[in-house]
Amino acid sequence: MPIALVGLDADDTLWHNETVFRLTQQRFVELLTPFADEQDLETKLGATEKKNLGTYGYGVKGFTLSMLETALDVCGEDLPASIVQAILAAGREMMTHPVEPLPGVPAALERLAAQYRLVLITKGDLFHQESKLAASGLGEFFRGVEIVSEKSAATYRTVFARHGSGEGEALMAGNSVRSDILPALEAGGYAALIPYPLVWEHEAAEKPTEHPRFRVLEGLTELPDWLATLP
Amino acid sequence: MPIALVGLDADDTLWHNETVFRLTQQRFVELLTPFADEQDLETKLGATEKKNLGTYGYGVKGFTLSMLETALDVCGEDLPASIVQAILAAGREMMTHPVEPLPGVPAALERLAAQYRLVLITKGDLFHQESKLAASGLGEFFRGVEIVSEKSAATYRTVFARHGSGEGEALMAGNSVRSDILPALEAGGYAALIPYPLVWEHEAAEKPTEHPRFRVLEGLTELPDWLATLP
Repeated sequence: MPIALVGLDADDTLWHNETVFRLTQQRFVELLTPFADEQDLETKLGATEKKNLGTYGYGVKGFTLSMLETALDVCGEDLPASIVQAILAAGREMMTHPVEPLPGVPAALERLAAQYRLVLITKGDLFHQESKLAASGLGEFFRGVEIVSEKSAATYRTVFARHGSGEGEALMAGNSVRSDILPALEAGGYAALIPYPLVWEHEAAEKPTEHPRFRVLEGLTELPDWLATLP
Repeated sequence: MPIALVGLDADDTLWHNETVFRLTQQRFVELLTPFADEQDLETKLGATEKKNLGTYGYGVKGFTLSMLETALDVCGEDLPASIVQAILAAGREMMTHPVEPLPGVPAALERLAAQYRLVLITKGDLFHQESKLAASGLGEFFRGVEIVSEKSAATYRTVFARHGSGEGEALMAGNSVRSDILPALEAGGYAALIPYPLVWEHEAAEKPTEHPRFRVLEGLTELPDWLATLP
């Protein structure tokens, strides 16, 4: 069965995201260097974030709460109100940050949308992801939007069945081996990895280099050509 | 066409929610009474929450950030770290608060599920709503779960079409006139209002008392009987 459905990740596949997190993290570290050294701050923030994933899930609001918790942890009773204010402001700025499509993405989506059913498949904060899609101006290319709390093989099976006629004709493209590639392959689909220069530690995983339904691409612009070669 | 699809709201329809918000709000007020009077604190928190809806959307994480913002607003540079800590803890407690089904709900769902396709339709935080459904033990009764960022007539049309064969055979039940009743009626469905003793100010709206497809019920337990009378 030829590919009919193309699932696309959003953050760091269609637009910059990890860069925004890293910039905010730098700002957090600068704010708190009077209280602890840089390496220590980064490690503590990473650990707090990871610990809180099970309570807050993914997204900027949870990240903001984790920054505040880390600041409290580091400063104790000496935490100045000005730092609380600066962290809240940094979080709010992330929520309202302009959405910047990656180079070539709008043209590649236009080309793909002419031939395939495109579905955005992203995890994270429902409200923020919808806001970003609206701000990106890319919404018109998608026939469906699926914002999910976790990207598992079961998630892909459900989405592939809902928007297509099953996994055999579905392909997922994204920048995370752990979230976009491995579970989509496990669900029986094809998978295209489009690496982003920065990878959140939590998403790191080994590429399934030898898998027959897997390919690494340099950009979304290469996807239509690979799709054309598939049976 | 007989009703085939029953949409159900979650917070304050299946389980307590506003009560948890009010208790947290009381705690917030107690924490800050040394800095401002009660009425003033409630008004300020409500205004901050409302102002932030467009940035944070619905849910506990946004509410926690709004409590912090209000505390900063009230205390300025004098905001003690201990209050920041207490607010973070209160927010975390809301996220992990036990989910308590309203009286009669499990039995009513069991009865409804035997005859209709049940779909949970709720707005708010994706991750938190999924966690609450899992914790409630009520997940097995639902054939679909739709967590949406806003409940508009367009939202109901999409959900009714996705899980049923359209609005004529769909009914929505919930506690909010603004979110569960008016848009579901506008989408062409039936709507059952099941009032909860507390209503969040933002959700207040006038009941469409005269509407032929609308009914006020005292509890979910009354829904099967109303459904049985529908054409």
